[in-house]
Amino acid sequence: MKAALPVSPLAPDGFPDLPAIAGVAAAIGQAGLYKHARPDLALFAVAEGTRAAGVFTSNAVGSAPTDWCRAALKGKGRVRGLLVNAGCANSFTGPAGYAAATRSAAAAGALLGAEAEEMLLASTGVIGVVLDDAKVRAVLPDMGDRLAPVDWPAAARAIMTTDTFPKGAGETARIDGVRVSIAGIAKGSGMIAPNMGTMLAFVFTDAAIAAPALKAMLRAETETSFNAITVDGDRSTNDCVLLFATGAAGNDTIKAADDPRLDGFRKALRRVLVDLAIQIVRDGEGATKLVSVHVKGAASDASAKIIARTICESPLVKTAIAGEDANWGRIVMAVGRADQPIVREKISVKFGPHWAAKNGMVAKSYDEAAMSAYMKGAELDITVDVGAGDGAAMMHTCDLTKRYVEINGDYRS
Amino acid sequence: MKAALPVSPLAPDGFPDLPAIAGVAAAIGQAGLYKHARPDLALFAVAEGTRAAGVFTSNAVGSAPTDWCRAALKGKGRVRGLLVNAGCANSFTGPAGYAAATRSAAAAGALLGAEAEEMLLASTGVIGVVLDDAKVRAVLPDMGDRLAPVDWPAAARAIMTTDTFPKGAGETARIDGVRVSIAGIAKGSGMIAPNMGTMLAFVFTDAAIAAPALKAMLRAETETSFNAITVDGDRSTNDCVLLFATGAAGNDTIKAADDPRLDGFRKALRRVLVDLAIQIVRDGEGATKLVSVHVKGAASDASAKIIARTICESPLVKTAIAGEDANWGRIVMAVGRADQPIVREKISVKFGPHWAAKNGMVAKSYDEAAMSAYMKGAELDITVDVGAGDGAAMMHTCDLTKRYVEINGDYRS
Repeated sequence: MKAALPVSPLAPDGFPDLPAIAGVAAAIGQAGLYKHARPDLALFAVAEGTRAAGVFTSNAVGSAPTDWCRAALKGKGRVRGLLVNAGCANSFTGPAGYAAATRSAAAAGALLGAEAEEMLLASTGVIGVVLDDAKVRAVLPDMGDRLAPVDWPAAARAIMTTDTFPKGAGETARIDGVRVSIAGIAKGSGMIAPNMGTMLAFVFTDAAIAAPALKAMLRAETETSFNAITVDGDRSTNDCVLLFATGAAGNDTIKAADDPRLDGFRKALRRVLVDLAIQIVRDGEGATKLVSVHVKGAASDASAKIIARTICESPLVKTAIAGEDANWGRIVMAVGRADQPIVREKISVKFGPHWAAKNGMVAKSYDEAAMSAYMKGAELDITVDVGAGDGAAMMHTCDLTKRYVEINGDYRS
Repeated sequence: MKAALPVSPLAPDGFPDLPAIAGVAAAIGQAGLYKHARPDLALFAVAEGTRAAGVFTSNAVGSAPTDWCRAALKGKGRVRGLLVNAGCANSFTGPAGYAAATRSAAAAGALLGAEAEEMLLASTGVIGVVLDDAKVRAVLPDMGDRLAPVDWPAAARAIMTTDTFPKGAGETARIDGVRVSIAGIAKGSGMIAPNMGTMLAFVFTDAAIAAPALKAMLRAETETSFNAITVDGDRSTNDCVLLFATGAAGNDTIKAADDPRLDGFRKALRRVLVDLAIQIVRDGEGATKLVSVHVKGAASDASAKIIARTICESPLVKTAIAGEDANWGRIVMAVGRADQPIVREKISVKFGPHWAAKNGMVAKSYDEAAMSAYMKGAELDITVDVGAGDGAAMMHTCDLTKRYVEINGDYRS
């Protein structure tokens, strides 16, 4: 991984202004996990009484930090902090990796007067290298001294790997008339096909919400945000999304995810998660196009999602988009290889407002000039009707360019 | 598709000498399905009494020619010929495409004194364009006049699309003491993930073997040859493998695939199919490395094949190989995302003779210098033990390079 990748052409205009979240402090550090000088550590301290929920990678190899968090969140979701490092995934590192994670959590917890088990951990970087926790522990005390209201762009930068821009999103909402705030940061650029990739996202709110309600909301909303994006179909060992609720806003604690008082909050949370997820695609390695694929007419929503994912992960579809080629034949090919119920005589494909195929054949209205003009845009919508039912799903991806190959052909070197 | 792609660095040394197959004649033609001048049509005539079997794409969209062949082979497998075109896949073309296929088969059959239904068809090229059968029919009579013993390299060249070299393989065997010959040609370079890409393969023998026995052998042997390769994970609408047996060698007709008299023939057939399949990977779009992935220790052979395929189709694994990087972390990631039973504490990974990971961690004997030297080779073996059982599978793939992106970013333009 090289330090100076050019910023993605799909990057948003600057980092957003995020609200301060009462009950959350942070410090950024440099443990030296990279060969070159850069921040690689972020420590978050959250107020006593904070509840948290997480969703984690379904990659069966997993990692020491995701194992650690799963165990730590088994109880009531009481947490006191989070330690995140870039530069080392601490995945596929066996007992030695888990011991390094444990020592890091203990050292960070001690700074905050908390047990190791009240600390969450997240790591991103190279797989198969044990975290050098001595380096981490050496810089933690100084970081503890510098804990302060969160500098969101600095925190987002500290957790970047091949990312070319820091990612943040924030919202406010009301619960029972009490104004609450949400702020989140994320990283991710390659090895992105979360089901629950390495993508990391950390979202903080000052709302008072019980852990089971946090967990239920996070699981549901992850499905249409982080689990609806793919850069390369490669699902990381370390993906995690964590949601922290400090309760400092002072609303009555909400216990159930389906409590109608959470409606506004849930919508705001959804906007934050979707915004962060799409920023990850905008920073997809080598990406020049942001593509949203809408599948409808599938046998079920789940079937629609499988078809959308097959289109989004097809190298031939992705390279055609890189070439600004409305190659709907490849989209049809991908629909056919998804192994889902379809009615081929009814398949229709639209790029933006332009029909390419209708009812199993090229569209009569097909206009090559209009299509070519549309394909030059940086943000594309592709709608596919597979003619088999009422199921629908949307998925976001990016194109596959020579840069992707370049970036990933010499990541370790 | 451009005419002059440089020949793959993995190409074999020249086209092999293939045996003449008694009872098979062919002619090559130029119907003008490409903008530039090149042969794009091959007509094969086979002796009366020839039996054939086929395996076809499982892509649910399919194509007019694969639909045609499935119907034509439903009976006793009696066939009189085969017409193959490049330049147009005639897939996703509805009733108009099927009508064009029907007229082509009828015209070719008439030349040979055969019914349309005794002719097989295969097409490769752009999806979504109806075959211009008038162009095909215009040149067929002249081709009929030129039918002669097969010029294998010319036939193999006529069916190429983005292929950079013609592909052929041949063998001889004995059935009941009678010497029989096998000759096959294939094409394929991109959209290759046959389950039963566009890959086409046509294999001819002068042996006398009944259609059910041909079909059973072809199905079984396809599993470990064409269905064990992948270039890009994109399964074509038009894949087909056809096996023709003219019977001209004069052996007693063999009725059952498990007849022990077929043992030698089956082994020879297997060598031809595997040889052709690997030639397709050698001509994978943009390929610079031929990679054989061996998975063992899986819960079953089927599970091993899913894991092998996930490794072979991972963009991060393929780009690392392009970069000559023994990035075993990405291999472990791919194992984990295959959603198959594994025991992560037992995962081991070997590149050629060099251990990278053993029992869930980096190998103690890991030698970066030896590994780097190994990765510079053009042909690589990767062995992965997932520690869950006795299942094993092998799959062949190639690396993912900038050339792949280049070739596929402007295929239609």
